[in-house]
Amino acid sequence: MKIALAQINPIVGDVSGNARKILEYARLAKEKNADLVVFPEMCVTGYPPLDLLDNPVFVDASVTAVNWIAEQGPDGIGVLIGAPVRNPDASGKKLLNAAILLENGREIHQMHKTLLPTYDVFDESRYFSPASEVNIFDFRDHRLGVSVCEDMWNWEGFSDDQRYAENPLDSLANAGADVFINISASPFSEGKHALRTRLVETICARYQLPFVLVNQVGANTEVLFDGDSRVHAPDGSLLRCAPSFEEALLVWDTSDPEVFDPSDHDPIEDLNKALVMGIRDYVQKTGIFEKALVGLSGGIDSAVTCALAVEALGSERVIGVTMPSSISSTGSVEDSRRLAENLGIEFHHISIESAVDAYSEMLEPLFSGTPRGIAEENIQARSRGLTLMAISNKFGHLLLTTGNKSELSMGYATLYGDMSGGLAVLSDVFKTQVYRLAETINLRAGRSVIPQDTISKPPSAELSENQRDDDSLPPYSILDDILKRYIERREDLLSIVDSTGYEDELVTGVLQTVDQSEYKRRQAPPGLRVSGKAFGMGRRLPIVMKFDRQDVNQLMMDAPALPAS
Amino acid sequence: MKIALAQINPIVGDVSGNARKILEYARLAKEKNADLVVFPEMCVTGYPPLDLLDNPVFVDASVTAVNWIAEQGPDGIGVLIGAPVRNPDASGKKLLNAAILLENGREIHQMHKTLLPTYDVFDESRYFSPASEVNIFDFRDHRLGVSVCEDMWNWEGFSDDQRYAENPLDSLANAGADVFINISASPFSEGKHALRTRLVETICARYQLPFVLVNQVGANTEVLFDGDSRVHAPDGSLLRCAPSFEEALLVWDTSDPEVFDPSDHDPIEDLNKALVMGIRDYVQKTGIFEKALVGLSGGIDSAVTCALAVEALGSERVIGVTMPSSISSTGSVEDSRRLAENLGIEFHHISIESAVDAYSEMLEPLFSGTPRGIAEENIQARSRGLTLMAISNKFGHLLLTTGNKSELSMGYATLYGDMSGGLAVLSDVFKTQVYRLAETINLRAGRSVIPQDTISKPPSAELSENQRDDDSLPPYSILDDILKRYIERREDLLSIVDSTGYEDELVTGVLQTVDQSEYKRRQAPPGLRVSGKAFGMGRRLPIVMKFDRQDVNQLMMDAPALPAS
Repeated sequence: MKIALAQINPIVGDVSGNARKILEYARLAKEKNADLVVFPEMCVTGYPPLDLLDNPVFVDASVTAVNWIAEQGPDGIGVLIGAPVRNPDASGKKLLNAAILLENGREIHQMHKTLLPTYDVFDESRYFSPASEVNIFDFRDHRLGVSVCEDMWNWEGFSDDQRYAENPLDSLANAGADVFINISASPFSEGKHALRTRLVETICARYQLPFVLVNQVGANTEVLFDGDSRVHAPDGSLLRCAPSFEEALLVWDTSDPEVFDPSDHDPIEDLNKALVMGIRDYVQKTGIFEKALVGLSGGIDSAVTCALAVEALGSERVIGVTMPSSISSTGSVEDSRRLAENLGIEFHHISIESAVDAYSEMLEPLFSGTPRGIAEENIQARSRGLTLMAISNKFGHLLLTTGNKSELSMGYATLYGDMSGGLAVLSDVFKTQVYRLAETINLRAGRSVIPQDTISKPPSAELSENQRDDDSLPPYSILDDILKRYIERREDLLSIVDSTGYEDELVTGVLQTVDQSEYKRRQAPPGLRVSGKAFGMGRRLPIVMKFDRQDVNQLMMDAPALPAS
Repeated sequence: MKIALAQINPIVGDVSGNARKILEYARLAKEKNADLVVFPEMCVTGYPPLDLLDNPVFVDASVTAVNWIAEQGPDGIGVLIGAPVRNPDASGKKLLNAAILLENGREIHQMHKTLLPTYDVFDESRYFSPASEVNIFDFRDHRLGVSVCEDMWNWEGFSDDQRYAENPLDSLANAGADVFINISASPFSEGKHALRTRLVETICARYQLPFVLVNQVGANTEVLFDGDSRVHAPDGSLLRCAPSFEEALLVWDTSDPEVFDPSDHDPIEDLNKALVMGIRDYVQKTGIFEKALVGLSGGIDSAVTCALAVEALGSERVIGVTMPSSISSTGSVEDSRRLAENLGIEFHHISIESAVDAYSEMLEPLFSGTPRGIAEENIQARSRGLTLMAISNKFGHLLLTTGNKSELSMGYATLYGDMSGGLAVLSDVFKTQVYRLAETINLRAGRSVIPQDTISKPPSAELSENQRDDDSLPPYSILDDILKRYIERREDLLSIVDSTGYEDELVTGVLQTVDQSEYKRRQAPPGLRVSGKAFGMGRRLPIVMKFDRQDVNQLMMDAPALPAS
């Protein structure tokens, strides 16, 4: 049997457009003599559709689209798609997350997702009831064991951190499946290709069955999907693997044992591709922006953001603006100009001095006698934000924010200032990674597209005279280490101090600053998620809260010993 | 047996502070000779703790606090509290949502929540596994049937919209409970007092048992809890009811049949109290703001916001600022000044003309030859936002945003302009309700605190000459009706047109505008939730999405008939 893997990039909510794309790929697969073409999870609605699923009219539209695909699809080929279907039970959530097999104008089988991820960016228990049963299906000369995304992530035999008691793959294998097919919308994060490979190898070793995985590709608001669809042999070896971050159609004959020679996945190359896809999809899928706009400070974050935007959209669709004040170094303007020249983009120079002076005068009656401080620094950042938003509003450009994850963690950014924009390109990229991106970009170009000065000068917000980031923040190599442990690995104070040897006071200060900056992040634009734990929809913390580790220690002195946990 | 209902207002995350408050109320209850004192759900952590629950150190801290309460609590009284506990099962979510009964220095019983709400603002399946069993507990001369919040909201016998197959109250009654006790963190929304009454009446009628409900009170970021703790007799009649929106300790003797005479809950009075509590708790619980700052436009939204802030914090802790441009009417400034005088607050007049002029000049090279439009309007709104944020940064005041739900629905607001601030007071209050609030405020004061001109003049953003809201929006009475149906009741185009008779084109336009404004709301400050469906954490929609009802209709013309749903 020939199975086609259709790694497509749907648009969330666009059920008619997605249906047309599915039909196009089904026809291509038929031309390649496939017996079965497999699409990603929820490909009819795009993933994640979020609360669109709460609208019955939207669910009706998806049902209509499924019927249309069945009706219009080529004959003689099975078309396996993902879509929400109504839960026939009177109680429980109203929907099921389904894999639907169509052939010759009608639906011939339906399977439902058992394991509903409800953590990080996933909210599936919000919408779906779990499958009431798991079953296999005979198709051509095979017994298909179809599962949906998380159904393969029980982690049994792979990790101690088992999220679920059930393992749907067990049920499929016990029922006699001779090939596993998983339809997924599994997001990208650093190292995900290798993680998927190890997981599927473990599954194959356990069941001695081949494994076909078809994953969504593309960016949907903040969540990025890498595709990385693949076929593994019963012994776990990789037989086929689709390119990451682009649409693809692979065909695999179940009798073909030829092993694929996997190319390396360099973490920084993957990161670069993911971010470029994120920018491109935001612009293409919203369909309302002709160009992207970037405020250039002469620093590395805006330079890398701008270079990535050029890679995503082309140099004729990116505009850079430098906006010096009296505090800015000449280097900032010159480095920005040089970057714009290197990238071949439209460039504007707008001094914000007159706006800053106007606010000084306006606020003089209230501010007189107070020392210059954060308020004055923020006026500069906000005058720049206002200028960029005015250009954005006037010409319909998408303003990209340039702040990195280290800054956003520490609230080292100005709300309504440099945090203004529609999409935050680097908000899940630590400062130390931004440097590596810059090096990769220059290496690939074979020249210093990003000026060497921009890379080598000490980072500065340039909001007061001779300011440097390390006046306010620990060195980025240390800071990023602490942040990665706290935010991504969920370590806390004691464990971080123990593992790293950093001063208790330093780590405490960083953790408190992260906690206290939540109010800024709540109002940040959506950012491209490239790590296992990004700010945004996957990390939900109260703004009004107190968690004082010292105070709890005081209670502990009075309280009986903690039971072991 | 004497049962005390301790309706307390915990701070999210503040496990040591909450433990001290619980101890204080336990001692008060002991002084009143109660045998049992009952606290709200998750009172040790405050509700909702959100992803704090993902931090094992935070869970340890809560466990420590529970041990401390057991140790320090008065002898001879049962103390029933709510807290997260670790799930002993190796698989599944790591926590259980528990009701823990303490007495004489130790834990004597534990019950777990069965129904885990995962919709709107609730994410409990993200953190908790459901109870593996439900059981009753003999205490003094009673058999306690303890449940946690949602466990009483199966809706069986009350509504066709049953969310769950299980009904934990059934299990408790079957096991022989003679009194139901429910510990809750059940949010306020319009009409919730009456809804709770009807629900408990239905439950009492079904089981012929008395019902004790203890609910959290207070505001935690955007979610407001009204308290409204109560005791119902086996026949459903209300025996005790705590005041809404404040802490309280009620005592009920299980042998006392005296019926309580419930006071009316006026919807606008409740709304007023909820918003005042929301402002007060935000300021008190964060503990970092001495004063609140409101930009006064002369319009009704800023006037009502300012009056509510004065009610919450006192006139000496609220500052009003009028910021006219060349377009502002003299009325705006005069009405703002009069409001400030009526409220007795500090008042400043800062013209934004010089800032607006500065941007005009700065942007002249780019904008020359383009017609005046949204960009220029937004420069004014953003110059005001920047001015207010500068004052906020300089003096540490909390900036309150003043936009209402009608505007926010339609994106009729400027991001980084009038949308700037830490807390959105009216973002869940439709414009038509804002008028009713204004009338109530004046009626209660016995004078026009909010100037009559402010109430009677046609609403205007005053960002261009002679602008009126109804140039861009339908009349608010119609708009609010459509918005309420679409957002809160989840009706869609056809049903709205059918029920109201409004033009298809009008309704389509409103729905599309709501959908397309999602990107603005994503960056809005947290707003006080007072309806069944507020913007913010309880309403999650993709920003990058296409859902074209027309296009789906086109597919439907080609597709086979929809199966009945």
